[in-house]
Amino acid sequence: MNSRVAVALVHYPVTDRRGDLVSTAVTNLDLHDIARTARTYGVNRFYVVTPVVEQQYLVERILSHWQDGHGAAYNRHRGEALSLIRIVGSLDEALSDWKICAGSAAVPVLTGATRNDGIGTDECRTLLREAPMLLVFGTGWGLAPELFERGWTVLEPIRGRGVYNHLPVRAAAAIILDRLLGMSASNQKTE
Amino acid sequence: MNSRVAVALVHYPVTDRRGDLVSTAVTNLDLHDIARTARTYGVNRFYVVTPVVEQQYLVERILSHWQDGHGAAYNRHRGEALSLIRIVGSLDEALSDWKICAGSAAVPVLTGATRNDGIGTDECRTLLREAPMLLVFGTGWGLAPELFERGWTVLEPIRGRGVYNHLPVRAAAAIILDRLLGMSASNQKTE
Repeated sequence: MNSRVAVALVHYPVTDRRGDLVSTAVTNLDLHDIARTARTYGVNRFYVVTPVVEQQYLVERILSHWQDGHGAAYNRHRGEALSLIRIVGSLDEALSDWKICAGSAAVPVLTGATRNDGIGTDECRTLLREAPMLLVFGTGWGLAPELFERGWTVLEPIRGRGVYNHLPVRAAAAIILDRLLGMSASNQKTE
Repeated sequence: MNSRVAVALVHYPVTDRRGDLVSTAVTNLDLHDIARTARTYGVNRFYVVTPVVEQQYLVERILSHWQDGHGAAYNRHRGEALSLIRIVGSLDEALSDWKICAGSAAVPVLTGATRNDGIGTDECRTLLREAPMLLVFGTGWGLAPELFERGWTVLEPIRGRGVYNHLPVRAAAAIILDRLLGMSASNQKTE
């Protein structure tokens, strides 16, 4: 059940549609969808990364609604999924917390739709057997270039059946967690 | 590029949390997320199934915004994805339209989180080589029992790493389309 995988959803530093460095707003549905998928695949922590204090407060209010408020009575499965969430100000803070939780330093693995230098799912699964992992997803138009300059591992983009390359981050996270941790027949064959 | 796969998102007949038969409201984000994923994987049609005329009108307004309105100027990729959408009143109407579009009758494949009688991804891929397919997803608490009584093919549930079994339909659609149509290394090995 313990997958030794944590997920981070980065709201800063990311780029906007023009490639400028921005901080994006937290989206309620990103929290719900990625938490539910993470919980399904045995992910241990879901770090919501934003340095903006008002945004951190918003996330706390959402969590409180589903864990202690009316939401908890309405649907306890949501609170169970959202309990994976930890609010942090930076990726480094996520790595520090996840190291304490996992017992050893984690390998950060960056995701993005436009990179050509990434490792494949099989190689990623091999890495995971050696150390805990932090899968890093970007909001907006993707993780900022400065993150890719830190020498961290990059995962190859998800390829569909053509040139259209605009998956929602919620769908990308689901697909990558299934490829990495899913119990499908095709995954078992490659183990 | 042509996958011979269409997707249907059913708002009636589905069940609610108590298992009662209901019609659910269309969710804006379901349309966007599933359309973007469908477009990425070369899906030909995305049928939004609701018999409620007001709901059909709402979907039309959303499509119009992104295809002709301000949304089209803001982000043309959304209109490109949403152009896959066809609004229909029933699954039978979706099957009729998809038959005309695909040139031959499609195999409907029902999805759900609680079935034990489903076929696996490999078998589903084999079916797809023989005929066009309509992948059917439910909203609310899932497709109504009456649909499972029609003798149609059922796909096995997505299994994670434990008993938690509450994936958003947006994530389930992404995972199933990737397993069925994705170009990942593990999928290629099973071809």
